[in-house]
Amino acid sequence: MQRLFKGGSVVSGSGAVRADLLVDGERVAAVGLDLTAPDAQVVDVSGALLFPGFLDAHTHFDLDVANTTTADDFASGSRSALRGGTTTVIDFACPNKGESLQHGLDLWHRKADGRAACDYGFHMTIDDWNDAIRRELPAMVDQGITSFKLYMTYPAMMVGDRDLFSALLALKELGCIAGVHCENSGVIDALIAQALAEGRTGPASHPACRPGPLEAEAVGRLLRMAQVADTPVVIVHLSAAESLAEVRAARARGQTVYVETCPHYLFLHEEVYRREPYTEAARFVCAPPLRPAADCDALTAALAHGEIQTVSTDHCSFTLAQKDMGRDDFTKIPGGLPGVESRGLLLYTLVAAGRITCGRMAQVLSENPAKLYGLWPRKGVLAPGSDADIVVYDPTADTVLTAAGQASRADYTPYEGFRAAGSIRSVYLRGQLAVDRGQVVAGPIGRYLHRGLPAL
Amino acid sequence: MQRLFKGGSVVSGSGAVRADLLVDGERVAAVGLDLTAPDAQVVDVSGALLFPGFLDAHTHFDLDVANTTTADDFASGSRSALRGGTTTVIDFACPNKGESLQHGLDLWHRKADGRAACDYGFHMTIDDWNDAIRRELPAMVDQGITSFKLYMTYPAMMVGDRDLFSALLALKELGCIAGVHCENSGVIDALIAQALAEGRTGPASHPACRPGPLEAEAVGRLLRMAQVADTPVVIVHLSAAESLAEVRAARARGQTVYVETCPHYLFLHEEVYRREPYTEAARFVCAPPLRPAADCDALTAALAHGEIQTVSTDHCSFTLAQKDMGRDDFTKIPGGLPGVESRGLLLYTLVAAGRITCGRMAQVLSENPAKLYGLWPRKGVLAPGSDADIVVYDPTADTVLTAAGQASRADYTPYEGFRAAGSIRSVYLRGQLAVDRGQVVAGPIGRYLHRGLPAL
Amino acid sequence: MQRLFKGGSVVSGSGAVRADLLVDGERVAAVGLDLTAPDAQVVDVSGALLFPGFLDAHTHFDLDVANTTTADDFASGSRSALRGGTTTVIDFACPNKGESLQHGLDLWHRKADGRAACDYGFHMTIDDWNDAIRRELPAMVDQGITSFKLYMTYPAMMVGDRDLFSALLALKELGCIAGVHCENSGVIDALIAQALAEGRTGPASHPACRPGPLEAEAVGRLLRMAQVADTPVVIVHLSAAESLAEVRAARARGQTVYVETCPHYLFLHEEVYRREPYTEAARFVCAPPLRPAADCDALTAALAHGEIQTVSTDHCSFTLAQKDMGRDDFTKIPGGLPGVESRGLLLYTLVAAGRITCGRMAQVLSENPAKLYGLWPRKGVLAPGSDADIVVYDPTADTVLTAAGQASRADYTPYEGFRAAGSIRSVYLRGQLAVDRGQVVAGPIGRYLHRGLPAL
Amino acid sequence: MQRLFKGGSVVSGSGAVRADLLVDGERVAAVGLDLTAPDAQVVDVSGALLFPGFLDAHTHFDLDVANTTTADDFASGSRSALRGGTTTVIDFACPNKGESLQHGLDLWHRKADGRAACDYGFHMTIDDWNDAIRRELPAMVDQGITSFKLYMTYPAMMVGDRDLFSALLALKELGCIAGVHCENSGVIDALIAQALAEGRTGPASHPACRPGPLEAEAVGRLLRMAQVADTPVVIVHLSAAESLAEVRAARARGQTVYVETCPHYLFLHEEVYRREPYTEAARFVCAPPLRPAADCDALTAALAHGEIQTVSTDHCSFTLAQKDMGRDDFTKIPGGLPGVESRGLLLYTLVAAGRITCGRMAQVLSENPAKLYGLWPRKGVLAPGSDADIVVYDPTADTVLTAAGQASRADYTPYEGFRAAGSIRSVYLRGQLAVDRGQVVAGPIGRYLHRGLPAL
Repeated sequence: MQRLFKGGSVVSGSGAVRADLLVDGERVAAVGLDLTAPDAQVVDVSGALLFPGFLDAHTHFDLDVANTTTADDFASGSRSALRGGTTTVIDFACPNKGESLQHGLDLWHRKADGRAACDYGFHMTIDDWNDAIRRELPAMVDQGITSFKLYMTYPAMMVGDRDLFSALLALKELGCIAGVHCENSGVIDALIAQALAEGRTGPASHPACRPGPLEAEAVGRLLRMAQVADTPVVIVHLSAAESLAEVRAARARGQTVYVETCPHYLFLHEEVYRREPYTEAARFVCAPPLRPAADCDALTAALAHGEIQTVSTDHCSFTLAQKDMGRDDFTKIPGGLPGVESRGLLLYTLVAAGRITCGRMAQVLSENPAKLYGLWPRKGVLAPGSDADIVVYDPTADTVLTAAGQASRADYTPYEGFRAAGSIRSVYLRGQLAVDRGQVVAGPIGRYLHRGLPAL
Repeated sequence: MQRLFKGGSVVSGSGAVRADLLVDGERVAAVGLDLTAPDAQVVDVSGALLFPGFLDAHTHFDLDVANTTTADDFASGSRSALRGGTTTVIDFACPNKGESLQHGLDLWHRKADGRAACDYGFHMTIDDWNDAIRRELPAMVDQGITSFKLYMTYPAMMVGDRDLFSALLALKELGCIAGVHCENSGVIDALIAQALAEGRTGPASHPACRPGPLEAEAVGRLLRMAQVADTPVVIVHLSAAESLAEVRAARARGQTVYVETCPHYLFLHEEVYRREPYTEAARFVCAPPLRPAADCDALTAALAHGEIQTVSTDHCSFTLAQKDMGRDDFTKIPGGLPGVESRGLLLYTLVAAGRITCGRMAQVLSENPAKLYGLWPRKGVLAPGSDADIVVYDPTADTVLTAAGQASRADYTPYEGFRAAGSIRSVYLRGQLAVDRGQVVAGPIGRYLHRGLPAL
Repeated sequence: MQRLFKGGSVVSGSGAVRADLLVDGERVAAVGLDLTAPDAQVVDVSGALLFPGFLDAHTHFDLDVANTTTADDFASGSRSALRGGTTTVIDFACPNKGESLQHGLDLWHRKADGRAACDYGFHMTIDDWNDAIRRELPAMVDQGITSFKLYMTYPAMMVGDRDLFSALLALKELGCIAGVHCENSGVIDALIAQALAEGRTGPASHPACRPGPLEAEAVGRLLRMAQVADTPVVIVHLSAAESLAEVRAARARGQTVYVETCPHYLFLHEEVYRREPYTEAARFVCAPPLRPAADCDALTAALAHGEIQTVSTDHCSFTLAQKDMGRDDFTKIPGGLPGVESRGLLLYTLVAAGRITCGRMAQVLSENPAKLYGLWPRKGVLAPGSDADIVVYDPTADTVLTAAGQASRADYTPYEGFRAAGSIRSVYLRGQLAVDRGQVVAGPIGRYLHRGLPAL
Repeated sequence: MQRLFKGGSVVSGSGAVRADLLVDGERVAAVGLDLTAPDAQVVDVSGALLFPGFLDAHTHFDLDVANTTTADDFASGSRSALRGGTTTVIDFACPNKGESLQHGLDLWHRKADGRAACDYGFHMTIDDWNDAIRRELPAMVDQGITSFKLYMTYPAMMVGDRDLFSALLALKELGCIAGVHCENSGVIDALIAQALAEGRTGPASHPACRPGPLEAEAVGRLLRMAQVADTPVVIVHLSAAESLAEVRAARARGQTVYVETCPHYLFLHEEVYRREPYTEAARFVCAPPLRPAADCDALTAALAHGEIQTVSTDHCSFTLAQKDMGRDDFTKIPGGLPGVESRGLLLYTLVAAGRITCGRMAQVLSENPAKLYGLWPRKGVLAPGSDADIVVYDPTADTVLTAAGQASRADYTPYEGFRAAGSIRSVYLRGQLAVDRGQVVAGPIGRYLHRGLPAL
């Protein structure tokens, strides 16, 4: 079956170009002017922007964490993603310490296969490092896993510097890349112990115990390790302006550093943690925490200037009932925000405001994550041969974000009532209509993506 | 007439994608897989990379300077450009002090119109600043001139800080951009006077009198002016690593800065100025001068990391006989190098060596200059509706650079004997075959390009 | 005649040490414990701090400027200085453009000789640069002038980059040093012209036309010139935090940079320029202008950490009637503040607040200026053989600053009503009691100081 | 008994001043010109510089480490110190993990009391952190221990980030200070394991496994912790230029950072580790290792500019026989160099070469360590009331450093054959002649110094 999208502008990392788009089956067949295709179904997209389906390289679906399980599994999470224009998610397979990577991968396949409405790949979490794990790496690559997550904080998941460095070397040998959660573990632990001992148990203690300099410290440390290992790394969910300074210093000495941030670090400020009552603050708890407004501005400027490569969501959703678990102890609040449904709308709001170009938006949501995670040019671009993952974006009709309207099982959105610029008219996944005017019409048609090596 | 290029890979700023390319008349009609076009002439480009025709945003053709005239006029210069894959040049219209901009523009049209074999636009040089000049600016924009060159050095062309700042403000109002030659004038003058007074009259004094810190000074000064004016600027032909530090500092404080460098700052080192006899050194005289090898490495790394937006040539060619004018006084050596013919080959050599990606090459030679100078998406990309300016690049057959083989009227090349990776098989200008296996087959078909506002 | 100061603590750049101080005639004879001197007059200074008499390396007494003459001449200015604990001023001899340095020096001797109540030396202003001036330099050194002031702003006084650089080289050869007023001239001129054209003629336009980045620009430019000249320089009256960043960058590349600031940049903020009516704002006009509070904090921190070498006053006093000259045009407001009378009290207020140590205070007011300007160890320290210039500081009795109480002929103080920590009990100049509980008791006993080469 | 030193110049952090010095018993009584004291023994020190006795704030005497014991105990070590002009050492008391601080302190008193020929204090090593240790801190302060050493490397001694941060907070509360050995432990362990696994077992692997970026990492991490704790810290034995960049960044954000380096990082380069045979390289093994020459130059410049506060020796001496233990495995080479005997001569060599002033030398060897470690003004200055610790330095007669001539029990010196500028004519400890023309004439007269709080 062929579909011919007529009258729109095709967006890439370079910008928007007026062009018709011919889709043949699951793939883009041609991009051209006044294309004709006698047998094709013609879709009128006049005035719309056709973005390559967004990739979200940082989701946590169906994750057991903090003595509970995230609100969204692959079914609801992927539907939430599609509504937000995200046709591909890369979720984090998380074996527990002591388990093999293969076990974690198998588990994640069981969670996702046959249930996801969008395409998906996995990063593999390395929360333990030993020879057995190291020997599993080539098998991971064979199964399409070429990026690996490491933690510098959280006792249950972190590895020490020695292991982190060794892992960087081992990944470098295979051409793989590490994405690292950078926060100093020990000092945060000390600050938390102090806060709890002093009875400061509410959500306001959350940002106080995870200040920006402790993210910057870990970023700086990771980048020194990467300098000695002579390998690129990804800083995931960078949140603090001080961390950008560390990245700039590393780049000035010649290192290759990739930076990911999230919409909530661009749109939300740490004042929310002082809201009352408890639930109004607890819903915003995530790590790293939200930062002062000046940091948000600095990150937005860095995004505009190309210093940030990807904007992912770190979607890790909980219901308000789940968030209630930390009422007496902020460290028990399950950490994470829903995000996969609102990312595209928020980013386009920056475009409409003239803060970033639509080319930059396509870069950080589509092109760059596709390249960085070995999916380009199959994903991340609307070029001949690419998957026909298409977001039909109407720049004229605004969208008000509400919990009521979302597909996520989180029963709130951090952006309640926010008026986003434009709206997502429809979404196509590999040529199939997946979202039609806000309704997810696709079933569990998502496929596992066997990823190649990073090439950004 | 239609042409269908089959079997190649289309390169853009995002990278290379396997695709056929259909050209209808002067424009790209479609990019697709297995395209068919019954009436089209099929061009087999199997294995080749199809780059969007390169733009050279910094040429000086038919320029009266240093009591002589550049070796290349628009006829030979544009033919030299085409051989190098450059289908568009943006030359600098240069009214003398006291003349109107319109006079300069008219003069440049007389030099170029009907003589150029490739397409061309003009930057306008502002070497004088007063109300009359200011009032001419809107007329320049109306005539397709949206970028303006200012000098911080050379008495005949420079304007002072007050005028430079006022010009930045005036250009900002119109949405235009300034490209600035950054070297400290006064200190260089003092060093030159000292060198001549001490009898150090040979080419080795050239770099000694124009050290890197004096470029960095002017870069820093310009960026402070741009900070106060709150406007982006272009640093043209940045050559010194210390200047990059100034650019980084400005970006870290949130400024938008565009950087241009040239192939000779990436491939040639200042040691050449100590060569004997005189001619072997004098041929390399240009300003800013070539720098130590460490600077070249720093610039290449910055290019790879996206810190440099465009690579132009500053093509300003002289014959060795002309270079002889400074035998007794290095300040009389006409300053400038030929470059427009070798740029693409040199850049691809960096690609082949793994120093930069082919996507980066397309960015800095095509996409970025087209956007920065208001020609995108007509130029700089092979997308539907774009001009069919195509470089068919064969990555397999190497090219040895020699003066004997070039179209430029310069009787030497700074890269004599250099083995470049790959070769330019053919070049198309707006759909017409312009270079066929090294032979320029196009006549003076170049058209003037009416440029829009900068949008990078 | 001998005087024995018993019971105090002698302060030096290293800190305060309990010790008696024996003065024999004009000089310090000994510093010791339980000193005895049968013939000496014993002065009980129990509980007091004995500071070496303060040096003020930046005063403008009896200066014709802005179509008027400063309120203080050497008589009133030196008495004002003494009341503030300053026993040595280094004033700026200012020949007009076209006049010889010797003419300027002779003129300044006529202004000061026999009239000053404190000791004094001169810097020489170089507001013109040519061979005649250059040839005068050795004679200046012979007459005790080893530091030279240059301006990067003010048409009447500035020299261009070429001349500034040449002057740096010439001074370097003699072992002399340049102190430079760093503000970008041209851009400030453009901003002023714009402000006046738009009718923004009030004092609030003063800081708007001289923003911090334009000081930082000039600092950066000067430091690049000094880098090429390979010579230390002094940044006089540094006011902006952004300028500190330029200084740090230069030091990080290995340069020697001396920084002077003034109390008003530490204690006053630019909001004062928005005060009404006119006189309340105009009285604060000086150049560089006062800065935002964040800059003041940054400068105070830099002072504490040793990044600033001297705190001078730039005392350039006018009456409110004189300040009235700019009522219709802020550029006509005579620029300058009185300061020589309050500096010591303000600095000690920082000591009392724990912001700096008393050793640091002695460094920046006494030891460092004495060394930097070739007067150490005659001035700047209370050591055997040094001039017995002594400030007896009572840390317990506070002082309220008022115009009514001051010796300066300025009829206001920028610090009206400010409660300073401690008070100056008495001041001795070369062993003679010069100030006794606030009253200047010395006549015009000040002597010209023939200064040696800088040695900090 | 009184001694009157006539004809010399007394040196302080401010510089050298011509003065006689009267000593009464153990203390300085007076500093003056033409002092007379009828009963005093007159010592002719014409032409000599009288330095305040040097403090060495970093020695390891009688330390059990690396399965052996340092060559010098307090008897030989203190005699070696005296010969080098060092009248006070601050040695590191080192309880083992699991032992109380009091145990360590008692042990160190047993090692030193009655055996040391020079005065001494102790830092306390915290190689374990728990509530018991924390509760001991006030008792330490009561016993004169106000500075504490922590390690970021060496499993036997390091504490993790959490403990290090908690210790910083606890020390801050008491007004004490931490000195920290900054090297990344885990990455060094990984590099060592790799080197040994690959058979690279010789001394050349030592610097390869401890590269500069890994010191810079730990410095950066410590400084981020100190930023959050809002407390000053001391970086002990800083060796790498990259670490200075981290210090500068912290200072630019307002932090107070004290930096110590050692003479071997100024005078020796890492090439020595490639010497043959084994012993010629192994003798230089210490941690952090010696660095490339560019780092030495950067450190010397930083020393000159006041960026480094103290120069200590990290004297930790072994015989060549002991160094032989690592012949098959460089990690078994006992790490450390003798240094206490040569430091003053080496530093004065920098003075003679014009690299630093003699005031700076007195600052970093005497004044600053005395202040930073709570001994000022008893130690570190020749002022009334101070201990009469005097180094009579003859700037005219050079000294050739040889193992044969030294008091240390190390049987080599890293500077064999080095010609140092000037010589130490004699040394006085609390008024007593301790070294006379190279011969230690003092017995075990050293006293324990009960130190106060840091106040630099």
